[in-house]
Amino acid sequence: MKIVSIKYGSESIRSDIRNAFVDFSEMTAGIVAIESDVVRNGKPLVGYGFTSNGRYAATGIVKTRLAPRLLKASRADLLNEEGNNFDPFKAWDIMLRNEKPGGHGERSVAVGSIDMALWDLAAKIEDIPLYQLLANRFREGRVNRRVYVYAAGGYYYPGKDLPSLRDEIRGYIDAGYESVKIKIGGVPLDEDRKRIETVAEMTGDPGRVAVDANGKFTVAEAIQWGEALAPYGLKWYEEPIDPLDYAGHAEIVEVYKGPLATGENLFSTIDTRNLIRHGGLRPDRDYLQMDPALSYGLVEYTRTLEMLTDHGWSHQRCIPHGGHQFSLHIAAGLGIGGNESYPGVFGAFGGFGDDAQPAAGYIEMSDAPGIGIETKSDLIEIFRKL
Amino acid sequence: MKIVSIKYGSESIRSDIRNAFVDFSEMTAGIVAIESDVVRNGKPLVGYGFTSNGRYAATGIVKTRLAPRLLKASRADLLNEEGNNFDPFKAWDIMLRNEKPGGHGERSVAVGSIDMALWDLAAKIEDIPLYQLLANRFREGRVNRRVYVYAAGGYYYPGKDLPSLRDEIRGYIDAGYESVKIKIGGVPLDEDRKRIETVAEMTGDPGRVAVDANGKFTVAEAIQWGEALAPYGLKWYEEPIDPLDYAGHAEIVEVYKGPLATGENLFSTIDTRNLIRHGGLRPDRDYLQMDPALSYGLVEYTRTLEMLTDHGWSHQRCIPHGGHQFSLHIAAGLGIGGNESYPGVFGAFGGFGDDAQPAAGYIEMSDAPGIGIETKSDLIEIFRKL
Repeated sequence: MKIVSIKYGSESIRSDIRNAFVDFSEMTAGIVAIESDVVRNGKPLVGYGFTSNGRYAATGIVKTRLAPRLLKASRADLLNEEGNNFDPFKAWDIMLRNEKPGGHGERSVAVGSIDMALWDLAAKIEDIPLYQLLANRFREGRVNRRVYVYAAGGYYYPGKDLPSLRDEIRGYIDAGYESVKIKIGGVPLDEDRKRIETVAEMTGDPGRVAVDANGKFTVAEAIQWGEALAPYGLKWYEEPIDPLDYAGHAEIVEVYKGPLATGENLFSTIDTRNLIRHGGLRPDRDYLQMDPALSYGLVEYTRTLEMLTDHGWSHQRCIPHGGHQFSLHIAAGLGIGGNESYPGVFGAFGGFGDDAQPAAGYIEMSDAPGIGIETKSDLIEIFRKL
Repeated sequence: MKIVSIKYGSESIRSDIRNAFVDFSEMTAGIVAIESDVVRNGKPLVGYGFTSNGRYAATGIVKTRLAPRLLKASRADLLNEEGNNFDPFKAWDIMLRNEKPGGHGERSVAVGSIDMALWDLAAKIEDIPLYQLLANRFREGRVNRRVYVYAAGGYYYPGKDLPSLRDEIRGYIDAGYESVKIKIGGVPLDEDRKRIETVAEMTGDPGRVAVDANGKFTVAEAIQWGEALAPYGLKWYEEPIDPLDYAGHAEIVEVYKGPLATGENLFSTIDTRNLIRHGGLRPDRDYLQMDPALSYGLVEYTRTLEMLTDHGWSHQRCIPHGGHQFSLHIAAGLGIGGNESYPGVFGAFGGFGDDAQPAAGYIEMSDAPGIGIETKSDLIEIFRKL
């Protein structure tokens, strides 16, 4: 059993949307396809991975460092003890060989995309969905067949006014989502208030509305906005400040007593541990959104979950950024709290399988082997071009 | 005044050396040349930059994100108010446009290489050495003409024994260095003890010997090694643990009372601020080694220095990693504590100008305009290939 080839590329996912910090006019995603010599139904099994969204393709790192290391590794270095499947943990060690500590960005995205492809491949070799493989390996087979999802949208874009925001949110509710997230901080507070109140009225409960500042505010601004947001009783207040300003978070929670959410821009277990150690977050209410695809993959994510357990955090507090099928499987297989969903954003890289329709805010997992990228027709089309 | 072209490439700096964490069998450096339309002596002025060493070229990011953003920027977005030179601060904002917060690695290296080239170009346009430009801009013209340097070496490599270590160190002392650094943690403690004692005897003072574990140890191991090292009274004990384990540093300094050094794998002001906030380091003895070329360039480094001043740290505590001419100019122009030097490592990317010979541990700065890469014949040869 061996890797026959690793193919990779970069796809534009440009759009006119923006959050408070960046616009997506140049955004790309990296894609990876790992072909094995395992033949099923006359075809070699292939694992697919991609770089989530929001941080650009990291194709250069895949090409110059990670793929060459994997391709020159011996079989024993990549296979499990029985020799009947690839071991993503061993592959991870090979990818990170001769990489210094620290500097967890881009590299973490490149590793994450290959890690996703390897888990997809490993589950296909067992001919089971990835969530089942994870449940078997880490939870004595226990699967959460239904996974909580929320619709992330409410971006700013040219010409977007309250009526068009209302149309967007109406679409999410009609599609079966119960809770939604919108951006804040890209317009003055009074304008954002109207957006929040509009959406809260539509969901029928402000507790079903999360807001996301994408790290734009200073600590003082974040506190000021927090004071304005607190009376609503929102679902959560996301990325008020720079994700690495741990002590700043500790200042905010002194004042803002509702749930905070952050973590999508923390890309390693050690960065997340610093947030937990120094950020003052509260295991009874706050949410952690680390995205396995951006942060060294599921291998590293298992270490992050273990670290969180050691610090008294339930897996249920984790709801990853990214809205991809990989995290959906991780939620079902490892019992984390749910997953983001981008029903209308990031083109083929947003959303789940074609038949994965939420009902009352939950997605029922499918039985497709692997991650099920084959069940998402627009996305598999992109991979087939490789 | 405009940028005519941005050329970039990647050079192998592979070697058989290793530290306790990585070997350098695959190591590369990225190079950048920025050509302006300013003609001097019949030739257009060109600024040169590279990615220091140890973290691989980041050419993909230069190519797909940074160079395109700079090349499509308007002239006003790149020039100073007088319109008579490029403004690296403005260029920095353009490079980081549409880049999310967090994830400071690789991108920081790519930005650092372009930032170096822009400062080189800006000083050449003024026809003065970079240190003079920096002194004029930030220190009312005050220059430190002599810069403290130490020889970094003592790597592990096949067949290296005590006699060959002795030869290496002899070479540094004969070349005019007073203090040296060697690697530790790649062999058992007893063996490293012999290496340290050998080198301390040669320098005549263990206070002239620094040791570097390259982040290999756990906190417990670091403390155990620290207890063994403490009686020597070494110059410093570098990167005992993962550079991002801030609280771990605070534990170590509870026990190890001699100077610690770290920071070469912190790539942003905010990461360094976390070290200062949570790492327990002591402004009266410890050293900070952030490398401007790896960490978003000199623009970001000025912010780091300002942050350090706010926290009561003298510029003198900063001795950057990397051993390149860029940091030598920063030391002379901004008055930081000195610079690393790699007289025998990293090929053309180690060492300073051809005529820059240390005397009693200090380098006398030259009058060459810019960074003076033209005065380093093996390095300028590489850039000319672009």
